[in-house]
Amino acid sequence: MAELRIALAQIDTCVGDLTGNAEAVAAWTRKAADAGARLVAFPEMTLTGYPIEDLALRASFQRAADSAVRALAADLATAGLGDVTVVVGSVGTGGGSRPTNRAVVLRGGEVIAHYDKHHLPNYGVFDEARIFVPGDQPAVVDVDGVRVGLAICEDIWREGGTVEQLAAHGVDLLLVINGSPYEEGKTHLRLESAAARAAQVSAPLAYVNMVGGQDDLVFDGGSFVLDADGTVLASAPQFVEHMLVWDATTGGAQRPGPQAQTLDADEEVYRALVTGLTGYVRKNGFTSVVLGLSGGIDSALVAAIAADAIGGENVVGVGMPSRYSSDHSKDDAADTAKRIGADYRVVPIAPMVDAFESNLHLEGVAAENLQARMRGVTLMALSNMEGHLVLATGNKSELAVGYSTIYGDAVGGFAPIKDVDKSRVWALSRWRNNHAIDRGEIPPIPESSITKPPSAELRPGQVDQDSLPPYHLLDEVIDAYVERSEGRAELLARGFDPEVVDRVVSLVDRAEWKRRQYPPGPKVTGVAFGRDRRLPVTNRWREPAV
Amino acid sequence: MAELRIALAQIDTCVGDLTGNAEAVAAWTRKAADAGARLVAFPEMTLTGYPIEDLALRASFQRAADSAVRALAADLATAGLGDVTVVVGSVGTGGGSRPTNRAVVLRGGEVIAHYDKHHLPNYGVFDEARIFVPGDQPAVVDVDGVRVGLAICEDIWREGGTVEQLAAHGVDLLLVINGSPYEEGKTHLRLESAAARAAQVSAPLAYVNMVGGQDDLVFDGGSFVLDADGTVLASAPQFVEHMLVWDATTGGAQRPGPQAQTLDADEEVYRALVTGLTGYVRKNGFTSVVLGLSGGIDSALVAAIAADAIGGENVVGVGMPSRYSSDHSKDDAADTAKRIGADYRVVPIAPMVDAFESNLHLEGVAAENLQARMRGVTLMALSNMEGHLVLATGNKSELAVGYSTIYGDAVGGFAPIKDVDKSRVWALSRWRNNHAIDRGEIPPIPESSITKPPSAELRPGQVDQDSLPPYHLLDEVIDAYVERSEGRAELLARGFDPEVVDRVVSLVDRAEWKRRQYPPGPKVTGVAFGRDRRLPVTNRWREPAV
Repeated sequence: MAELRIALAQIDTCVGDLTGNAEAVAAWTRKAADAGARLVAFPEMTLTGYPIEDLALRASFQRAADSAVRALAADLATAGLGDVTVVVGSVGTGGGSRPTNRAVVLRGGEVIAHYDKHHLPNYGVFDEARIFVPGDQPAVVDVDGVRVGLAICEDIWREGGTVEQLAAHGVDLLLVINGSPYEEGKTHLRLESAAARAAQVSAPLAYVNMVGGQDDLVFDGGSFVLDADGTVLASAPQFVEHMLVWDATTGGAQRPGPQAQTLDADEEVYRALVTGLTGYVRKNGFTSVVLGLSGGIDSALVAAIAADAIGGENVVGVGMPSRYSSDHSKDDAADTAKRIGADYRVVPIAPMVDAFESNLHLEGVAAENLQARMRGVTLMALSNMEGHLVLATGNKSELAVGYSTIYGDAVGGFAPIKDVDKSRVWALSRWRNNHAIDRGEIPPIPESSITKPPSAELRPGQVDQDSLPPYHLLDEVIDAYVERSEGRAELLARGFDPEVVDRVVSLVDRAEWKRRQYPPGPKVTGVAFGRDRRLPVTNRWREPAV
Repeated sequence: MAELRIALAQIDTCVGDLTGNAEAVAAWTRKAADAGARLVAFPEMTLTGYPIEDLALRASFQRAADSAVRALAADLATAGLGDVTVVVGSVGTGGGSRPTNRAVVLRGGEVIAHYDKHHLPNYGVFDEARIFVPGDQPAVVDVDGVRVGLAICEDIWREGGTVEQLAAHGVDLLLVINGSPYEEGKTHLRLESAAARAAQVSAPLAYVNMVGGQDDLVFDGGSFVLDADGTVLASAPQFVEHMLVWDATTGGAQRPGPQAQTLDADEEVYRALVTGLTGYVRKNGFTSVVLGLSGGIDSALVAAIAADAIGGENVVGVGMPSRYSSDHSKDDAADTAKRIGADYRVVPIAPMVDAFESNLHLEGVAAENLQARMRGVTLMALSNMEGHLVLATGNKSELAVGYSTIYGDAVGGFAPIKDVDKSRVWALSRWRNNHAIDRGEIPPIPESSITKPPSAELRPGQVDQDSLPPYHLLDEVIDAYVERSEGRAELLARGFDPEVVDRVVSLVDRAEWKRRQYPPGPKVTGVAFGRDRRLPVTNRWREPAV
């Protein structure tokens, strides 16, 4: 009977930051060695960061990643960690212009083995068939007499391939390194896929996942170890860097390790949003954010998330009342800022609106949009002067139906709740306030922001429900039509009112078109004789000097 | 010896417009029949439009495309065209959620055969591995005793697969339907790939390509027929809908058909830009455009392209002078509008700028950006009031190095010259003016706009060359670094000055990051628990009523 202490280091990497990521690997390997671990595993594409999109295709980046792997192996040995077996992710090169998605095994100052991901996901948020070539060879590493088979993320979600080959080889442990983005309820699906593979190889499975925000994705960690029969033997918490230590046994029953508490649904989503914003701000070199505070629930929730992410003292809230803003809105905006300890300023937009309207005769939607755009320009001016990242505060429901002004309230570098529907905005706000009350703290969101009827306040007496179905209904139709790609036939079969379906479907179609038609800042649609490079926003990689 | 008259119908389709595309097929089939053709071939994904991105994955769309194919077959027969063999592109369904990229063969009111594309391109502008499953069966159709093998676009650019199988089968003609986007110099590459396949199957090859603008791509037509030895037997012009008729011969030498004139390099690019803008405006339901006229060459060239695309009377030019605008700029702006017959208006931005500056103290880049943003808001206000599409006038050089204001001059739904560098802007402007002179027309671009030093006029005396390398040098470095993905080592090996390389590389990296960081209107980066649907901008598809 042999024992092997392993450490699953769920760390927060940054795309392109080869140096910083390697330093993190060295520091966590030291911690693992101090804890007596003989094998320490890091998430998918540890050194390069993930997802790296077309950055992977750049020859000079591939060369630098190769060097970084070799340097890391040598540095670990120099630091007296050469006898620990370290599994890190990077890119594998050697073939054509496309690399592989690779796990390398470092020991004794050298790369002693590698494994290239076989199943490349190419749906939803994944584009891996575009940037990687698949591997087709299984890899087994001997660590103190324990045979450890390697796999990367998607490899355990599909049948066949290298895991099937490992089953024939025989392994004592299946080690899977992952960059698995957070989705609500996904933990359950991960456990199911992992259990199927553990059964297939008749061995325990150790799953290590990355954590942190990267561009518009959030990685939640939640690493775990399963026994061959699917029993959860050990688990790590979500949304924090963590090292899960567990002792594998060969020739005997497996022993359980530490188990993390699970989060309830609203807390899980809220912490995902905080993690996403934290990563975006820090990894892009910002230290502060600015946002418009309207007194409504959306901007109040975003302010609370921002305060939890980077501290209320690094949040600038700007009240930008127009002639249609109600007194309660102005009060609630100021109150929100006070509750979270934000810097609060008031910039009335009436003079700017007047300057435009005396030059251009505007009415209807054009006049409403003008107000929103004056606010967008104000926030960008503050950003340009003071360096804050502008946050957009739109929620998924209003973005889906086009209740948003392009170059107006849509202005911003990051939109924390763009994938959170209005029903959820209320639920998260209530959860966050109750969470504060439970801890004897001041609830960050004014109660009246939660209870009052939603309004854009772009004309007198306007409320959202004048022109939209009730939000609980709207959100259900959006979910079915947008997220689950159901057609009119399927929507009607669910029992939705045909008028509501017609209204929502036509609003969504029009909004989606507008969004694509007037896409970005400078990267607008135009004649292109090649596609813009697909690169991550957050990317620390710079061409090396020669 | 048998003869078969074929017609290659290079038509302009629209994504999602199943009805309109089917009507076009019927109309052109009538023309082909009138010209005595027995076989008429249309471009890749004729009925659905191309490229359709994730629209292909929508089950209700797949069902509608299936119905459209069957209805078209029946309609052709009803119209007395049942004895013509018609090859059209669509999606093939039946398997899982992903369809195939399919060619269907219609005759006698029925679908008599189909072929599913084997090689799916997944690089550059193509994402086909994401949305289609590959086919693996070759298809040969007998038309009046002539054996016609089928292939789709990428199938002839790579070795192996169904074309290799056709070579073993033996065919009299290889028919290739294409959606091949325009790139400068690509005609040559297409002929090379086609010649290799014609030799492989020992038969002539007929190549039909789509034409027209679709989102940010331009398709140039340029259909052709090659003999088995690579000789061009017939060719169609670029950038126009056209039917190329040619008589195939079996058991004897092939006879040549009509040959189109080739365009010189500047004319080819200019016509690609006009085609791209025409398609975007028309297919998205606009009839007019609005753009800022600064008096500089970029906005003058865009105005000329717009006038050529949709007529000068449908162009609104807006002069938006600031306190830094020179008199010659104002004169040249008015002159540009007059030359192309555009509606011209002047909206001075000083009052709006003053209204902001009396509320917010702005200096440096923040003050420069404010001016650009007042112009962006003005154009959007006119668009909202009057329904024009806003054109952004930035060129590739300035966008690449970040000489552009997000939510300012970058505002717009379409940017005709975003992929045209400044050196090319001058060349195209000269070509367009000379072209007018050759035809005895008024040159659209004021001579002084071409000759004066470029300036953003955002502060007194500012010119681009104060802070940028000369444009001919800048454009070369951008081309190597951005388009050809060369690293610093490769750039220096080309002999570029290290200081210029450092300057340009750091500007490009920063601009690219800014562009990604502050991307679009409402579709800003933010926490997403799924990726936004990837849909075309131009998309006529609407959920059918049930």
